[in-house]
Amino acid sequence: MSVFPFSAIVGQDEMKQALLIAAVDPSVGGVLVFGDRGTGKSTAIRALAALLPPMRAVAGCPYACDPASSAGACPHCSGQSAPRRSHRVPVPVVDLPLGATEDRVVGALDLERALTAGVKAFEPGLLARANRGFLYIDEVNLLEDHLVDLLLDVAASGVNTVEREGLSLRHPARFVLVGSGNPEEGELRPQLLDRFGLAVEVTTPTEIATRIAVVRGRDAFERDPAGFVAAHAKAERHLQRRILAARERLARVAVPDATLEAAARLCLALGTDGLRGELTLMRTARALAALDGGEIAEIDHLRRIAPAALRHRLRRNPLDEAGSTARVARAVAEVLA
Amino acid sequence: MSVFPFSAIVGQDEMKQALLIAAVDPSVGGVLVFGDRGTGKSTAIRALAALLPPMRAVAGCPYACDPASSAGACPHCSGQSAPRRSHRVPVPVVDLPLGATEDRVVGALDLERALTAGVKAFEPGLLARANRGFLYIDEVNLLEDHLVDLLLDVAASGVNTVEREGLSLRHPARFVLVGSGNPEEGELRPQLLDRFGLAVEVTTPTEIATRIAVVRGRDAFERDPAGFVAAHAKAERHLQRRILAARERLARVAVPDATLEAAARLCLALGTDGLRGELTLMRTARALAALDGGEIAEIDHLRRIAPAALRHRLRRNPLDEAGSTARVARAVAEVLA
Amino acid sequence: MSVFPFSAIVGQDEMKQALLIAAVDPSVGGVLVFGDRGTGKSTAIRALAALLPPMRAVAGCPYACDPASSAGACPHCSGQSAPRRSHRVPVPVVDLPLGATEDRVVGALDLERALTAGVKAFEPGLLARANRGFLYIDEVNLLEDHLVDLLLDVAASGVNTVEREGLSLRHPARFVLVGSGNPEEGELRPQLLDRFGLAVEVTTPTEIATRIAVVRGRDAFERDPAGFVAAHAKAERHLQRRILAARERLARVAVPDATLEAAARLCLALGTDGLRGELTLMRTARALAALDGGEIAEIDHLRRIAPAALRHRLRRNPLDEAGSTARVARAVAEVLA
Amino acid sequence: MSVFPFSAIVGQDEMKQALLIAAVDPSVGGVLVFGDRGTGKSTAIRALAALLPPMRAVAGCPYACDPASSAGACPHCSGQSAPRRSHRVPVPVVDLPLGATEDRVVGALDLERALTAGVKAFEPGLLARANRGFLYIDEVNLLEDHLVDLLLDVAASGVNTVEREGLSLRHPARFVLVGSGNPEEGELRPQLLDRFGLAVEVTTPTEIATRIAVVRGRDAFERDPAGFVAAHAKAERHLQRRILAARERLARVAVPDATLEAAARLCLALGTDGLRGELTLMRTARALAALDGGEIAEIDHLRRIAPAALRHRLRRNPLDEAGSTARVARAVAEVLA
Amino acid sequence: MSVFPFSAIVGQDEMKQALLIAAVDPSVGGVLVFGDRGTGKSTAIRALAALLPPMRAVAGCPYACDPASSAGACPHCSGQSAPRRSHRVPVPVVDLPLGATEDRVVGALDLERALTAGVKAFEPGLLARANRGFLYIDEVNLLEDHLVDLLLDVAASGVNTVEREGLSLRHPARFVLVGSGNPEEGELRPQLLDRFGLAVEVTTPTEIATRIAVVRGRDAFERDPAGFVAAHAKAERHLQRRILAARERLARVAVPDATLEAAARLCLALGTDGLRGELTLMRTARALAALDGGEIAEIDHLRRIAPAALRHRLRRNPLDEAGSTARVARAVAEVLA
Amino acid sequence: MSVFPFSAIVGQDEMKQALLIAAVDPSVGGVLVFGDRGTGKSTAIRALAALLPPMRAVAGCPYACDPASSAGACPHCSGQSAPRRSHRVPVPVVDLPLGATEDRVVGALDLERALTAGVKAFEPGLLARANRGFLYIDEVNLLEDHLVDLLLDVAASGVNTVEREGLSLRHPARFVLVGSGNPEEGELRPQLLDRFGLAVEVTTPTEIATRIAVVRGRDAFERDPAGFVAAHAKAERHLQRRILAARERLARVAVPDATLEAAARLCLALGTDGLRGELTLMRTARALAALDGGEIAEIDHLRRIAPAALRHRLRRNPLDEAGSTARVARAVAEVLA
Repeated sequence: MSVFPFSAIVGQDEMKQALLIAAVDPSVGGVLVFGDRGTGKSTAIRALAALLPPMRAVAGCPYACDPASSAGACPHCSGQSAPRRSHRVPVPVVDLPLGATEDRVVGALDLERALTAGVKAFEPGLLARANRGFLYIDEVNLLEDHLVDLLLDVAASGVNTVEREGLSLRHPARFVLVGSGNPEEGELRPQLLDRFGLAVEVTTPTEIATRIAVVRGRDAFERDPAGFVAAHAKAERHLQRRILAARERLARVAVPDATLEAAARLCLALGTDGLRGELTLMRTARALAALDGGEIAEIDHLRRIAPAALRHRLRRNPLDEAGSTARVARAVAEVLA
Repeated sequence: MSVFPFSAIVGQDEMKQALLIAAVDPSVGGVLVFGDRGTGKSTAIRALAALLPPMRAVAGCPYACDPASSAGACPHCSGQSAPRRSHRVPVPVVDLPLGATEDRVVGALDLERALTAGVKAFEPGLLARANRGFLYIDEVNLLEDHLVDLLLDVAASGVNTVEREGLSLRHPARFVLVGSGNPEEGELRPQLLDRFGLAVEVTTPTEIATRIAVVRGRDAFERDPAGFVAAHAKAERHLQRRILAARERLARVAVPDATLEAAARLCLALGTDGLRGELTLMRTARALAALDGGEIAEIDHLRRIAPAALRHRLRRNPLDEAGSTARVARAVAEVLA
Repeated sequence: MSVFPFSAIVGQDEMKQALLIAAVDPSVGGVLVFGDRGTGKSTAIRALAALLPPMRAVAGCPYACDPASSAGACPHCSGQSAPRRSHRVPVPVVDLPLGATEDRVVGALDLERALTAGVKAFEPGLLARANRGFLYIDEVNLLEDHLVDLLLDVAASGVNTVEREGLSLRHPARFVLVGSGNPEEGELRPQLLDRFGLAVEVTTPTEIATRIAVVRGRDAFERDPAGFVAAHAKAERHLQRRILAARERLARVAVPDATLEAAARLCLALGTDGLRGELTLMRTARALAALDGGEIAEIDHLRRIAPAALRHRLRRNPLDEAGSTARVARAVAEVLA
Repeated sequence: MSVFPFSAIVGQDEMKQALLIAAVDPSVGGVLVFGDRGTGKSTAIRALAALLPPMRAVAGCPYACDPASSAGACPHCSGQSAPRRSHRVPVPVVDLPLGATEDRVVGALDLERALTAGVKAFEPGLLARANRGFLYIDEVNLLEDHLVDLLLDVAASGVNTVEREGLSLRHPARFVLVGSGNPEEGELRPQLLDRFGLAVEVTTPTEIATRIAVVRGRDAFERDPAGFVAAHAKAERHLQRRILAARERLARVAVPDATLEAAARLCLALGTDGLRGELTLMRTARALAALDGGEIAEIDHLRRIAPAALRHRLRRNPLDEAGSTARVARAVAEVLA
Repeated sequence: MSVFPFSAIVGQDEMKQALLIAAVDPSVGGVLVFGDRGTGKSTAIRALAALLPPMRAVAGCPYACDPASSAGACPHCSGQSAPRRSHRVPVPVVDLPLGATEDRVVGALDLERALTAGVKAFEPGLLARANRGFLYIDEVNLLEDHLVDLLLDVAASGVNTVEREGLSLRHPARFVLVGSGNPEEGELRPQLLDRFGLAVEVTTPTEIATRIAVVRGRDAFERDPAGFVAAHAKAERHLQRRILAARERLARVAVPDATLEAAARLCLALGTDGLRGELTLMRTARALAALDGGEIAEIDHLRRIAPAALRHRLRRNPLDEAGSTARVARAVAEVLA
Repeated sequence: MSVFPFSAIVGQDEMKQALLIAAVDPSVGGVLVFGDRGTGKSTAIRALAALLPPMRAVAGCPYACDPASSAGACPHCSGQSAPRRSHRVPVPVVDLPLGATEDRVVGALDLERALTAGVKAFEPGLLARANRGFLYIDEVNLLEDHLVDLLLDVAASGVNTVEREGLSLRHPARFVLVGSGNPEEGELRPQLLDRFGLAVEVTTPTEIATRIAVVRGRDAFERDPAGFVAAHAKAERHLQRRILAARERLARVAVPDATLEAAARLCLALGTDGLRGELTLMRTARALAALDGGEIAEIDHLRRIAPAALRHRLRRNPLDEAGSTARVARAVAEVLA
C-alpha cells in the first residue's frame, strides 16, 4: 500500500522536526502531538516510518531482533546458538486500535497452544510488534491512565515485563511512542505529560494558498498514489540520507558546559520538576545538531527545541495553549538572550 | 422481501441528495441523518441499496470481494491462485442491531472451530458483511463512543484491523456508514461529528397534503407491496442509470482553483477545525456535478451541498438546529455571493 | 389452568378496547398500559389470549409457524419440503420474567448441543415463543432501555435478527407487545414511548359498588375457577366471534380522505413528531370500524381512539396524566368539532 | 435441633396474629415484620413452622409435592404414572442467606450432570425447597429490588418460572414469604410494600417484668432446650389444633356485603391504590373469623386486622411509624364507627 | 513459631478482660476492639489462643470436631460409625486476610476434585478452620457489610450454611469473632455493631514508663522469643488454670432477679434497642463471676462489664468515643447506685 | 545489564541514609520516598541492591531460601531432608509493574499443571521472588489500598498467607518494601502511611552545578555503562563493607533508657498514634549507630533519623511537606535540646 511521502507534507514544521529528532535518537522519549483533528498527524508518523530504510531482522523472531546485536536478546533469540538467518523488513508502525485490550498490548498466554498442546506459551502483543519502530496512539488523552503509564514505562526502559496469567518474561520493546490528542477533550495527568520527551502543536493552516495546497496534495495522492509517490522520490531519498548521517554522527556531537548551564537556567526559570527537562534539552539539542550536520550542540539548538521539550512540563495549566508556549518563549528570550 | 422504492419517497430532498452522493462516491465519508423519529430514515437506506444493481462477488468469500479487482485482496481471496468463481449478490445493507457486541461487529475467534478442530480461525463480523455496501446505525448517538470511533476508523480506512483473542489480521471493509439520530437524546462528541462526511436533517412534513401522501404511500405499500413496487419500477430504473452514469463520469470531473478557493473561504469564515470541511466540499461538489451530468465542480455545487458538508463542523452548539444551518447559509450568502 | 374470562373484567374500558384492536390488527403496534398496581393488567392480557381460538401451527416448529402461510418461513420450516404436519395450539402469551437475560429473550447458542455434538445450533428464546401471540412485560419502565428498544424493533419488524456468539440468523417474531408500568416509577424515554401504538390508562375504581364487584369476582374465580369460567362461557364466545368477524372484515374497511385529513389536523394541532401518530390513527380507526361491523373508518372512530393513539406522543411531560389526556381531548374537541 | 415454642413467645401479639393468619390461609400474601433487631422475629417464624404438623410429601420429589393433590404437578411428579410413595416431612422454613445468588434462589443448570453426563438438568433452588412452607428473608430492605420483586412474583403465583441458561421450566413454589426489616435502614419501594399482604411492627418491650421474662425464657431455653420444649408441649398442641380447625373451617366462612363495603370505605378513606387492600382485608378477616371459630367475617375482624393489612399501603411516608399506624386507626375509628 | 505471652501484655485491661470472658463463654458473642493502630490488638488474640490448652479433635476432620461430643456432627463425622480416632491440636486462630474472597471464607466447590473426579465435593473455608477457636478480622470496618453480616450470622448460630454453586450443606462453625477497627475510618452500621457482644477500646499509653515497658517488651521478644516465653511461663500457666476453672464453674453461677432487673433498668435508661444488651449483660456478668471464682453474678459484675457490653448499642454517634463510654458510665452511676 | 552505582548518586542524602538503614536492618519496615518525578528514586533502589553481595540460596527453591537457616522453611524446602544444594544469586529487586494483578503478586493456582496434570500446585508470585530482597512500587499512592495493605501485611510479618482458589499455604516473604509517590497525586490513607517505617523526601536540586553534575552523570552512564561502573568500583566496595560490618555489629548495639525515654517524649510531643513511632526510632537509631561503627544508640542518632521516622505519623495533613518536616524539627529541637 502506498504511503504519503514525508517530504510532501505541507507546513507543520514543529511536528516534522520533533519526529525527525526521534528518528535520529529514540532515547529522547515519546512525542506528543496536540492539535485539531484532520491535520495529518497519523499521516506524518506513517510517512516517517516509510522514509526510513528497511531494517535487518532475525527471521521468525516475533520481536524482529537485530541480527547484528547480541545485547538484550529476546526470549526467542536467546535460546538459539546457531547463526541466525535474517531478512529485511520495513520499520514497523503499530497502531494502538481503539478498544485494544491490555493483553493484546502486552501479550498474553497463547490460548491455542495452551488448549491444544498443554503448553504455557507467550503470544507476543503490540509492544513486541512495535520493537525497533513506532507505536502510535490516536487520542492518547482518551486512553486509560494506567495503559498510558504502562506504555511510557516500556518506552522508557525498552523492555516489556510481563507478569500475567502465570507468565513471567521480559522482551525488548524499543520504540518511539507517538501520541496524538486534542487538548479540548480531557487532559493527561501532569505525571504522564512529563514523561513524554517532546510535545508539539499542530494547527489548521489559515492561509488560503496553503489550505488549497494541502487539499490538492491529498486529493492527488488519493487519486494516483503511485504517481504521487514517484514525484517525491528524490526529496525522500535526500531526507533519508540526512537522517542516516545524523544517526551516525550523533555519538560524536559534544554538549559543552555552556549549553548544559543554559538548559539548567531555562528549567529553573520555568520551575520544571525533576531533571527530565534538562535531559531532554541536552539530548534533543544533540540530535538537532546532528541533523544540521554539526558536531556541537549549541545554545541555538536549545532555543529551537525548547518549546517542544518544555511546554508540557510547566506547572499550572500546562496546556493552556498560547499560555505555556508563550511562557517558554519568554523564558528563552530572557535566559538565553 | 419487497423494499419501498427510493423514488416513491415523498420529500426529504436533502437526505436523498446526500445518499445519492454517497452512492456515487463512497469516499465522501459517512452520512449522518438527524431528525424526528418516524420520518423514514431506515426506509431510505434500504431503498437506495435496492436501487443499485447487484454486484459481482467472489463465491464463498465472506467479504464479497470484487472478482475484477486484485487490490486489497482479503484473507480469503489472497490465498487462492486459481481463477475465482463469482456470482451476483445484492448490495449489502447491514444493520447494527441494538446490543450488538464488539466482537460481532469486528469479528472474533470462531469458537466452534477452535473447540472442535483446535484451529484459531477468524469468524468475520458485521464489518465484513458490510463490505462494498452500507452499514446502518439507528440512534448512533446512543452507541458507545468507542464503537462509533471504531466504525468511523474502519469506514475511513476501508480496512478492518483485528487485534483480539490472539487474532491479528486485516480485511477490506469499504462501506458507507449511515447513522441516524435524534439531537434531543445525547449528542455525539464534536470529534466524532467531524468525522462524518455529510450531515442532513429530516423533519416531519407540515403540509396536510404531503402528510396524507406519505401515509397513503406507506399504507399502500404495506397492503400490496408487489403492486406498489411495480408502479414505481420505471422511475427506479431511471434513477439507477443516473447513479451509474455519475460513477463513470466522476473521474473526469475537474475541480477548478476558484471552487477550491471558495471552499477554503467558506471554511475559514465558519472557523471549522482542520481541513476535513474542504476535502468534503471538494468531493461532494464533484459527485454532485457528476450526478448533474456535468464535468466541472462549480461554486453552485458548493452552495447546494455546503449545509450538509459543514453544519456539523461548527464550534459551539454544532447542532442547535436552525442555528448551525442558518450560520452555514449566512456564510454561503456572504462568501459565495 | 383456568383463566379469568375477558368478559368478566369489570370496567377498564379503554384498556379492553385497545387490546381488542390489537387482537384485530396487530400492526397497530404495542399497547402500553399505565396505571396503579393491582388493577388487573396482567389478568386482562391472559384473558384476551384465552379468548382467541387456538391456532394451527407446524408440529415441531419452535416458532409455531402457520402451516397455511409460505411467507417468512422460519429457519426450521424453510428447510423442509414435505407437507408439514400441524396441530392446534393456544395463542401464546409470553411473560418477560424479571431478570430475564438478553440471551434468553433473543435466543442463544445451544450450549448442550455445542458441548455434546460440537454443533453451533440456535436455541430459540422468548421472542420465538411469542411469535403469533402476545409478549407481556410488567413494569416496562423498569426494564433497561436497550432491551425495550430491542423488543420494539422486533415487534415493529416482525423479525428477530440474531448476531451473537457466532450465530447469525433471522426468524419470524410477530407478536403484540404489551407493556405495563407505573408512571410514578421512572419514565420511558420519549423515543420509546412513541414507538408504542397505543397507550391506555387504568385506574382504581372509586365507586363502592364497582369495587365490591371486582373483589367478589376475583374471590369467586379463585374459589371455584371452573364454575366461574362456565358462567361466562357464552359472553366469551360472543366476543370471540366479534373479533374473528372484525379480522375478516378489516381488509375491506376504507379510510376516506376526510378521515385522514382529520387525523393529520389532529396531529398538527398536538405537534406530534413524525407521522407515527397519523399512521396509528388510521390503523386503529380502521380496526375499530371493523369491530363495530362497519366498512368505513369514520371521524367518530378517530374521536374514540385518539386519546389512546396520541397521549404518549405529546412533547413535554407526555405522561403528566390528566395533562396529556386533557390536551388530546381539547384538540379532538377543537379539530374534529 | 430443638426449636423455641411459639406459645412461649412473650408479647409481640400483632406479629403472632399475622403469622397465624398466614398459616391458616397462605393466599393472604407475605408478611412483613418491621422493627428493632433482637426482638425475636426469626425465632417466631421457626416456632410457627415447628408448630405445624408434618406434611406428607412424594418421596424423592425436590418440591415435596403433596401426594394427595394432582393439580400443578411438578416436573418431577408429572412424569410418573405409578402410585407415588410418600413420607412425612416437617414444614420447611427456608432462610435466604445473605449473599445467596439468584441462581441458588431460582435454581440453575446442574453443572455436575452437565459436565459428567452431558445432560442439561435443572438443579432446584431455594424456591423449590420452600414449597408448601415458609421463606424467610432477614433484612429484606437490604436485598436488591429485583430479587424482592422476583420473590413476590413467585409467592403470588405459586409458580417459579425459570428462563435461564437454556433452561425453561415451571415448578410449584407455594410458600408464605416472611420478610423482616428495620425501617431505619433503607426502605422498600412502595410498589414492593404493596405486594406484601400484611405488615406488622415489633418493638422492644418497655416493662421491666416483660423484659426479664423474655431474657429468662431465652436463657432457660438455651441452657436446657429439651426441658423447655417439654414444658410448653401442651400449649403447643392446643394451638396446633386451633390452626388445623381454622383451615378446615375457612371455606365455610362467609363475607357479608356489609363487611366488604366497610372494607371498601376504609380503603377509599385511606386512598390506597388498586384493590389489593380490600382483597387482603377480605381474606384476613375470613381467616381471623376461622381462627376465632366463627363462620362469618365480621366488621370487628376488619377492625382487628386493618392496621396490619393497610399500614404499608398508604401514600407518602408509608412507614413513618406512628404516622401510618395512627392514620389507619383514625380511619378505622371514623369509617367503622 | 513463638507467640507473645498474654500475661506479658502491658496495660490494655479492658481488652484483656473481654477476651478472657469470651474464652470462658463464647456465647457472649464477638468482641470488637476499637482503637489506634499499633496497640497490639492482633498480638493479644494470638496470645489468648496460645494460652488455652490444646483441644482433642477427630483426626482428619476438616472442622476439628470434638470426639467427645455427638451433637452437631459435621458432614465429615456424621457419616462415620466406627469410633473416631482423635489427636490434640492447638486452639485455632484464623486470620481473615485482606482480599479473602467470599468463597474462601464460606468454602466452595472443590474444583480439583470436580475437574479430575467429576465429583461435586465441598472444600471447607476459613469458617471451617475457625471452628472451636477464634476468627480475627483486622480493620473490620473496612470489610464489606455483607461479609461482616455473614460472619456475624455464622458466629451467632454456630453453623455455616452453604448455598452456592450447587452445593447445599451445613457444618459447625463455633468460634469467637474478634474484629478490630479504627473509628476514624468508616464506621460499622449500627445494625452490625449491635450484633457484637462486647466492644472495648484500646489506646496508646501516655505514661513514659509504660511506653518504654511496652517497647522494651516487644524488642526483647523479637530478639529472643524463646527466652522471653520461658520467663513468662509460670504466669501463663496460672492464667490458663483460672480460665479452665471458670469454664467448669460457669454452669453453676446463678443470676438473681435483682441483677437482671438492674440490667434491664440500665438498658432502659440508655434506650438500647431490643434485648441484646440485657442478654449480654447477663452472660458476661455470669462469666466474670466465674472468672472471679464466685457462684453468683452480682450487680458489681454488671458495673464492671457494662461499658464493654453497652457502649456500641447507644443510639446516635454510637462511637463518639468519650461520648458513649461516658454515657454508659453515667447511667451505671445513676441506675446501679 | 549494568546498574548505576549507588555511590555515584549525587545528593539525595536523606533517601540514601534511609535505604542504607533498611539494608542493615530490614525490620525497620518499608521506606516511602516522596517527591518529584525524575529524581532518581528507582535508580537508587536498584543501585542499593546491586551494591549488596550476592546471597547463597537453595538451588531450585522459588523463594531463594537461605541454606544456612532452618527457621521458616518454605513449602519447597520443608519437604526435603537431604542436604540442600545452593548457589549464589544477586539480591532480588522486584518491581510491581503497573496493572499487576493480585494473583501475580500473591501467587496463584498453576493453571498449566492444573490442566495438564490435574494437580493443584501453587505458582509463586512476586512476593515469593522478592524474598530476602527489595520490592519496589512506583507511585504507591496510585495503587489500590487493599493491595498496599496486603503488601504491608506481608512485609511486616515476613510471611505470605495464601487463601485463594482452594490453595491454602504460607511461604517466607521477607523483603524491604520501597514505595515512591508524588504527594500531589492522591494521598495514602494515614493508616497505611503509619505502617511504613521511614518516609523520606527527595527534591529536584536547585544549584546549577549540582544539576549539571546529575545530568552529566546520567549521560555518561548511558553512553558507556561499563566504563562508568568501573570508575566507581572502589567507592562501591567501601560502602558494601560498611553495610556488612553494620549488620554484623547490629546485635551488639545497646539502646540506653535515656534514648528510649527521649524517643517517647518526642512521640508524645508530636502526638503520634500507637507505639510504632518509638519502635521505629529505636530500631533506626540502632542501625544508624551500627553504620557509624558505634555500639550505643545515642540521642544524636535519634535526632538524625527523627524526620524520616516520624513525619508521616503526624495527625492532620501528614504530608503538607514543609509542615510536617518542620513540626518534627521543632519537636526535636524542643525535646532533645
